[in-house]
Amino acid sequence: MKRRNFVAGISAALGGAALMTARASAATHKKRELRMVTTWPKNFPGLGTSSERFARRVEKATDGALKINVFAAGELVPAFQAFDAVSSGAADIYHGAEYYWQGKSPAFVFFTALPFGMTAIEHAGWIRHGGGQALWDKLSARFNIKPHIVANTGTQMGGWFRNELTSLRDLRGLKIRIPGLGGEVYRRLGASPVTLPGGEIFPSLQSGKVDAAEWIGPWNDLAFGFHRIARHCYSPGFHEPGAALALGVNLDVWQSLPPSWQAIIEAACAAEHVASYAEFTHYNALAMKTLRERHDVRFLAFPDEILSAFRTSAAEVVKEAAVKNEEFGEIHASYKTELARAREWMRHAEQSIMNAR
Amino acid sequence: MKRRNFVAGISAALGGAALMTARASAATHKKRELRMVTTWPKNFPGLGTSSERFARRVEKATDGALKINVFAAGELVPAFQAFDAVSSGAADIYHGAEYYWQGKSPAFVFFTALPFGMTAIEHAGWIRHGGGQALWDKLSARFNIKPHIVANTGTQMGGWFRNELTSLRDLRGLKIRIPGLGGEVYRRLGASPVTLPGGEIFPSLQSGKVDAAEWIGPWNDLAFGFHRIARHCYSPGFHEPGAALALGVNLDVWQSLPPSWQAIIEAACAAEHVASYAEFTHYNALAMKTLRERHDVRFLAFPDEILSAFRTSAAEVVKEAAVKNEEFGEIHASYKTELARAREWMRHAEQSIMNAR
Repeated sequence: MKRRNFVAGISAALGGAALMTARASAATHKKRELRMVTTWPKNFPGLGTSSERFARRVEKATDGALKINVFAAGELVPAFQAFDAVSSGAADIYHGAEYYWQGKSPAFVFFTALPFGMTAIEHAGWIRHGGGQALWDKLSARFNIKPHIVANTGTQMGGWFRNELTSLRDLRGLKIRIPGLGGEVYRRLGASPVTLPGGEIFPSLQSGKVDAAEWIGPWNDLAFGFHRIARHCYSPGFHEPGAALALGVNLDVWQSLPPSWQAIIEAACAAEHVASYAEFTHYNALAMKTLRERHDVRFLAFPDEILSAFRTSAAEVVKEAAVKNEEFGEIHASYKTELARAREWMRHAEQSIMNAR
Repeated sequence: MKRRNFVAGISAALGGAALMTARASAATHKKRELRMVTTWPKNFPGLGTSSERFARRVEKATDGALKINVFAAGELVPAFQAFDAVSSGAADIYHGAEYYWQGKSPAFVFFTALPFGMTAIEHAGWIRHGGGQALWDKLSARFNIKPHIVANTGTQMGGWFRNELTSLRDLRGLKIRIPGLGGEVYRRLGASPVTLPGGEIFPSLQSGKVDAAEWIGPWNDLAFGFHRIARHCYSPGFHEPGAALALGVNLDVWQSLPPSWQAIIEAACAAEHVASYAEFTHYNALAMKTLRERHDVRFLAFPDEILSAFRTSAAEVVKEAAVKNEEFGEIHASYKTELARAREWMRHAEQSIMNAR
């Protein structure tokens, strides 16, 4: 066979296959790689691992055509520069907590957690069915970003304290690691809140730089060993009744993706939303048992006097923020309405059965 | 140009395209249609609509290559024959509640809800991270089915009662619509539980055939108008602290799917798991407000005496089932361990913040 005919023959065979493929299969898309920067240490349990699992879900669902390369905090950019990197297009996607971007707009806090606010599922109801996503899209579009919920830690713990809390007086002068609005609540009650990255909490507790610290919950906190210094663990984590995590995609990148890949990313985000919340629930319960039985940790509820002061102070902090910033105020109006209804409903639903068990 | 050369030319062009496609895109798969039978009326809010949304997610994510045709209850097979249809291959997928198949094995109840059992997220923790899925896979494989969680209603209501409940005596002789283990709990306390399909509940309440009825929650119950006959709505729905819904795929069909489509189905199931739970939370809260403000419904908690009797009776019912059936007993051992830990954890997490708000 002459070379020309040989090539034509192969082409004819492949041509037939191509026609059949066009008729009989999904549209095909050019291979693509995207860079995802995260705000988590490598393999960080719960959040780091969920971001890796998200990338694998997308890769598997696209038969490897859409590859998402995951960078831990500091590998491509430092954790708190993830937002700017994606906004500018230096990276394609970030995986992090929206309240890290409160310097851009205080309104980002609604997409993580609000003190005495919604639990994980109430928040999902607001985002997915109560208008929350549209408000978030509008806020993030100002920064050229398309946001999705990609995880939730569930209710966090109130923190680890060296000494037992007996009255409001115990908060005066207390040096505690707690960032954001929760920190502001403590400040108004006479404490000295500080913000420290996760890795600096243990040494700061050890050296006495802080007397107390909140981080996430038993699963993550056990790994850091806070209980070795401060064995009183208080609940509830009023400052984060359910902390949502976000996946932000550069808006130009998002719009350049075919609809099927957008659908796959959306489904993979939602899948991790429930898988991560379920994972925190399962492993926090396990870790709590370990901390109690092997490390003699005391899990305590904040005394009524303190809890009541937290509630009053948190309401003031949120109200003032709503007055001061229009964007915060607009989103807060929607959030507040959803929360008021959800609270009444939950009294007869999850809250009711949990109290009855 | 001679015809032969013309054809060769086209083939060459297409062949080139085919080579590029093979290099630069996802694997392509033959178009396929699957038949999904559901146990829900057409467009039934929450569960019917979630099954439709699941099908659209899969279709969009596969660029239309995998089409799932959704059949409402009765369209292809009656609701309660969905399991047999998929087991035998007469249909490919079902979307329903596993406790409908208790006649096949009483152990299926663990994959919907257990009286005084796990809430939706605790159940998700057990299924996704605590070994529940493996136990479920083993049970369903006996019937040639691969199961997935695809939705959860959240905590259901205890039911609608014509008269206010004041003591245990009020349960004696009470005719109440409540199926499954919950019904058995009522029977042991002197009531006469009956099982009725959704559509027959309202006329039965109206005619006095039953004095009380449980169905789902405010969102679905409002649509059926139960409040027009029985305006006392009790909580908690101790019989269903969180009712999971299942997507069962014929095992031969499941194994014949390419890994990317399996990944897409898994992600779409998980996405509906959180989307539906969030949707029930949002719309139940809205409907509760409507029922209170416009229809003068009284939302009440079961009196302590009754709740305590429910608890004792439910524990007996579950214990006896575990002794009687080995499969039930094996799965119950795993469920019980997870529940005991989750209950302790939740006391300091969601339950704690909801009680503190």
